[in-house]
Order: sequence, then C-alpha cells, then structure tokens
Amino acid sequence: MSESDRVAEFTAFRQRLNERILGEDNQVIRRFFALDTQTYRAGVLDVKTKEMLGLVASLVLRCDDCISYHVAECYKAGVARDAFFEVFSVGLVVGGSIVIPHLRRAVDFLDTLESAAADEAPPCADHVAD
Amino acid sequence: MSESDRVAEFTAFRQRLNERILGEDNQVIRRFFALDTQTYRAGVLDVKTKEMLGLVASLVLRCDDCISYHVAECYKAGVARDAFFEVFSVGLVVGGSIVIPHLRRAVDFLDTLESAAADEAPPCADHVAD
Amino acid sequence: MSESDRVAEFTAFRQRLNERILGEDNQVIRRFFALDTQTYRAGVLDVKTKEMLGLVASLVLRCDDCISYHVAECYKAGVARDAFFEVFSVGLVVGGSIVIPHLRRAVDFLDTLESAAADEAPPCADHVAD
Amino acid sequence: MSESDRVAEFTAFRQRLNERILGEDNQVIRRFFALDTQTYRAGVLDVKTKEMLGLVASLVLRCDDCISYHVAECYKAGVARDAFFEVFSVGLVVGGSIVIPHLRRAVDFLDTLESAAADEAPPCADHVAD
Amino acid sequence: MSESDRVAEFTAFRQRLNERILGEDNQVIRRFFALDTQTYRAGVLDVKTKEMLGLVASLVLRCDDCISYHVAECYKAGVARDAFFEVFSVGLVVGGSIVIPHLRRAVDFLDTLESAAADEAPPCADHVAD
Amino acid sequence: MSESDRVAEFTAFRQRLNERILGEDNQVIRRFFALDTQTYRAGVLDVKTKEMLGLVASLVLRCDDCISYHVAECYKAGVARDAFFEVFSVGLVVGGSIVIPHLRRAVDFLDTLESAAADEAPPCADHVAD
Repeated sequence: MSESDRVAEFTAFRQRLNERILGEDNQVIRRFFALDTQTYRAGVLDVKTKEMLGLVASLVLRCDDCISYHVAECYKAGVARDAFFEVFSVGLVVGGSIVIPHLRRAVDFLDTLESAAADEAPPCADHVAD
Repeated sequence: MSESDRVAEFTAFRQRLNERILGEDNQVIRRFFALDTQTYRAGVLDVKTKEMLGLVASLVLRCDDCISYHVAECYKAGVARDAFFEVFSVGLVVGGSIVIPHLRRAVDFLDTLESAAADEAPPCADHVAD
Repeated sequence: MSESDRVAEFTAFRQRLNERILGEDNQVIRRFFALDTQTYRAGVLDVKTKEMLGLVASLVLRCDDCISYHVAECYKAGVARDAFFEVFSVGLVVGGSIVIPHLRRAVDFLDTLESAAADEAPPCADHVAD
Repeated sequence: MSESDRVAEFTAFRQRLNERILGEDNQVIRRFFALDTQTYRAGVLDVKTKEMLGLVASLVLRCDDCISYHVAECYKAGVARDAFFEVFSVGLVVGGSIVIPHLRRAVDFLDTLESAAADEAPPCADHVAD
Repeated sequence: MSESDRVAEFTAFRQRLNERILGEDNQVIRRFFALDTQTYRAGVLDVKTKEMLGLVASLVLRCDDCISYHVAECYKAGVARDAFFEVFSVGLVVGGSIVIPHLRRAVDFLDTLESAAADEAPPCADHVAD
Repeated sequence: MSESDRVAEFTAFRQRLNERILGEDNQVIRRFFALDTQTYRAGVLDVKTKEMLGLVASLVLRCDDCISYHVAECYKAGVARDAFFEVFSVGLVVGGSIVIPHLRRAVDFLDTLESAAADEAPPCADHVAD
C-alpha cells in the first residue's frame, strides 16, 4: 500500500469512527470533542503556536495518530521545516530517546505532506515568495 | 484483510506467544500471568465491574491490545453499549485527548463484536429479551 | 503536622486554587472543569461504579492528589474496605510495582477517613444498618 | 515555611545537586545537561515560543519541578497571564484531568512570581511601558 | 509479508529516516543522536549490561521499536535466552500487565533472531560449545 | 528535619503501611508483593544486575520512592558510584530531561548513603580494600 493510500485510509477510518462516537448519546464525550476543537482556535496565542504546543505534547506522550494530526495542522498553519525540527528537538530532549521512533514517523509524514504539496504546485511555484 | 481475519490473526498470535512465554522456565513471569488471571475473578466486586476497571485502566495507559481484550471481556460479562460509553467517558476525561485514537479503535472493535453477534443470532433474535 | 491538619491544608489549597483558575477568563479550562464534574454523575452506571473507575485510572497514572480525591468520593459513595482493595488489586496488577508507593498513601488516606468516621460515630453506631 | 522560602530552598537544592552531578566524571550526563540548555536558545523559534513548548511538554508529563522551571522561564521571556492560561488549556485538554493537580501548583507558582514582581516594582510602575 | 521481510522493511525505514533527520541542519537533534549512541558504549559497565538496562527501560515505557532494537543489541552482546527472560520479568513486575503485549512481541522477535541464527549455523553447530 | 530523620520517617511509614496492606485479606495484592520480592533474587543474573535493572526502570517511570529503594539495594549489592552514574545516564537519555529532577534526588540520596557509611567506618577505613 502506498503512503498516500495509507493516509487516505486512516483519514477515512478517523472520520467514520468520529461519526460513530458523536452519534452515540453520551454528552460527556461529545462535549470533550467540542472542547478539543475549541482548544486550538486563535486566542491570545495564534493557531500556529497552539498547534505547535499540541504537536510537542503529542510527541512527548508518544501518540502517532495525534502527532500526524498536529503535523498536518501545523503545516496548514504555515510552520516551516526548520521550525518543525525545533519543535521536534524540544520534544526529543524533554521526552528522551524513547521519542525517536515517533520522530521518524513524524518526519516521514512531513516529507509526504511536502511531496504532495510539491506535486500540486504549478510549474512556476518556485518563483513565488512564501 | 477483513476485520474478522485481523481479529483471528491477533488471537492466534496472542495464544502462540503466551504458550512460548509460559513454556519458558521463568517462575516470576508464570506467576505474574496466573496473578493477572486471578485479578479479574469475581470477589466482592463482580466480574463485570472488575473488567470495566481493567478497561478504563488500559484506556488511560493507552494500550490497544489491552483495551481490545477488556472490551471483549466486558462484552462477554454483559456490559451494554451505553455503559461502555460511560467507561470510555471516564477514560477520556481522566486521560485527555491523547486517548482519542485508542477510543476510536475501541469503538471499532466493539462494533465488530456487536456485528458478529448480530450475524450469529437466530432469525427471531430480536424477539428474545436480552 | 498531624494527618488531619495535612488533609485540611490540602483541601484549602485545592479550593483556593480552583477559585483562582475558574476566576480566570479562559473558557476551555472552565468547560473542562465542568465536564470533569459531569463525568462522575450517575448515568447508566451509578456514582459508586464511576468513582471506582476514576480511582483505578488515577492509580495506574500514579497521581496522589487524584487518588486521594477518588478514595474520598468512593468512601462517600459507600465503597467498602474489601471492595477498595479489589480496586487497588486491579490497579496494582495493571500498573505494576511502580504503583506500590501510591497504594501505600492511598491505604493511609483510607485509614484516616475510617478513623475520622469512627471518632464521629455515636456510641451505638454499630447497631445502625449501613 | 513561606512560599518564598520554599522557592529559595528548592533553588538552592537544585543548584547544589546540579553541581554534584556535573562534578561527576560522566560525559553522557554532562553533555545531556549542555544539550538541555542549548535546546531553549533562540533559533527559528524565539525563546518565548520554545519555553512555552517546554512548559506544555512538562505539563502533560506531569513533572512539577519541570513545570515550575518553565513557568519561571516563560515569565522572564514575557509570556502574559492570559497566554499562560492558553498554554495550560492545551496541556489540560491533551493530558486530561490527571493534569489538574499540577495545573493548580503551576498557577500558584505563577501567582507567587507575579506577587514578587509587584512587590519589587517602583510606585510608578504602572506608568512604564512593558 | 514474512517476519524476515517485515524486519528488513523496518530496518530500511529506520535507516532512511535517520538519514533524513541527521541531514537536517538541527544541531540539538544531531547531538542527541550522537549522545544516544555514546550512552551504550562500554564504560565501567560493559555493553551487555548497558543494553539490558536499555531493554528494561524500553519495556516499561512500552516502545516496541526501542524494545526490538535493544533485544537485537543484547542478542549481539551475548545475552542468553534465560537472561532475557529475567530482564523481561523485571520489566513485567515493575511495569505491570500493560507490558504483556510488548513482551509477546519481544519474545516473538527474539524467536526470529534465534531462528535466523540457527539457519545460518553450519551443519555441526550443535556440537560446538557456546 | 534532617535528611537522616526524613529517611527514618519514610522507612517507618513504608513498613507500617506494608503491614497494613499485607494484613488485609486480599490474595492478589499479597501475591504481588511476594512476586515483587522474588523478582530481584539472584538467578541467571546476579542481584546487582537485577537491582540496576530495577533502578533504571524506576528512573524512566519517574517514581522517587522506587528510585530511592533501588539506589539503596544497588548500594548494598556493591554498585560503585561511577556505575551508578552510568545507570543514571541510560535512564536520562532514554527518559529525557523530565528525568532530571528525579536524578537530582537520586544523587542526593546516594550522597546520604555514602556519608552515613563514611561516618560509620573505622578511622582506618581508607586502608581497607573494598
């Protein structure tokens, strides 16, 4: 299975199960999901900073799905590759070598996002200022 | 691979490795396995309550195999779907959003158990009191 | 400092800081605190069961303040001493020997609660049905 | 013991033991300490952002000493009270209610830092631009 | 996919991503990787002991990739099967039943290493003292 | 309170509560305590190695009481100061900077043990081979 197929499959699973969970009549869980979304909205801190906070927290707690999610959100919010590696460095030093396998998968996922973006970019994209 | 094939494969792996482990001449590990089994036997608390305790502990420690195991045991002990979601809600609030990916897989596994039970039920099953 | 003074001091600290936190204009945190309270309300599962779930989750995550809190709530909800030890046994086996220091403090706190209750009981308390 | 005495005592302990550790002929540990310091230096991300990353990581891993350290560093780097609470909210939602006792101590420590700053400020401090 | 294919695929992934990570201009991460390697070099303690320490630490922190890595390194350093099980027993008792799924995979990986070694051994290998 | 008073108080607490726990009619907990003791007995690995394994596991799981216990047992089993620091270095690199506060307290406790031993030694102790 290709990497992009794997991502597509995970995204479909994630969406289907979120619907199953939110379709259940359990108010605590529904409210938790709503709160989770609210947490990363812009406040005094902007979305970019909040998503980096979510990423480093996921990294030290070593949850691959959470890491992928926040890598994608950080990427959308404009976090640059070298900034990603600084976030990773904090997670690595705080969390220790036990974080390394998750760091590898995070970098692999970031590479996939960047490749996909490069493929989608128009021929002259490299002429455009970021 | 279908979900039921995946479950069958995991069950076979689990059984084969348990045999490898218990076949080894290490008394501490053997006793630990025996103790683990003893823990969930009915005492002052019934099996159902103990399995729910095992489930919420597995959920906040975020171990998918342990979660699946206790979901199956809770299901056998008669925990209903809405009670499952209340156990999940405690695990989610205590353990935080980092628990969500494990919650998704727990719900998916519960759905699989319920589907399998529905398939096995006789045509008039819906007439039978639970 | 006596044990009861220590408990009183902690309770005062807890209340003062909760007020500081809820007095802050941060809706996510306020909602989380409300959700935390809602989680343990009676639903399909009764308060006693939910508090035992909260206790075992706190035990395996090894948070002394959370453990004390849920020991007190379980005690209020009528969990008996032998039932407490069965909850402890699940937490110990799932979480391992690393849980033992927290188990000691949990038992010490439970002893304190029971002593305080014995001191407050009228002479004929043992004639009264529970 | 007053709160400021407690902080002074901890700071003295921390410094004395760091010296004991770095005085030992163990290159791995010395290099780790050097790396830890280097991690929070300004890079693509500024010190303020890196310290907030360190704070949220410490919060979800529930280490009081680490939390106090990063609260102090964030405070020095100019993180405002409402920004602190947004960092706390991410830590709370990601890490769950198990984080709450650490959040209380973090807020108490932040209050201490702010009180100390207020005491030291000259009478006309409120006229001075930040 | 066979077990040996799975190991080969993981090893290739691990190497490719390590190169991606070390190819990035982030000195903290590079230094951390160098320090990680240095940690397990012979010192007062020999490589065998240090690798067993790395293995038990990985086991209680429940990181499968780290466990596989240290199982392989211990195996290379000459840790015998019964010694492996004593390391596992410490990890199991300290870390609790939550470690069991990781223990299964560790034993499966050890079996794979031993089978591969048996396949590679010359016909008269069973006559040779270890 | 002096450091030695603190150690004496903790030891008394530990003993009193262990008796309370083992005095309770809960077979799972009693067996777990017996198993915990059995785990560190000499087997293929000697007591010294097993205690170092217990120490590094306690360090990465960040349990101060467990760390103190295993530091004391390692010390009794003859682990030298530089070997202690190599165990600490593995725990620090695997577990990350979050381990540092626990490392400080471990070193402080080791210093206390060494000072007590120095006080008890006869005047000519430095002439005696270890």
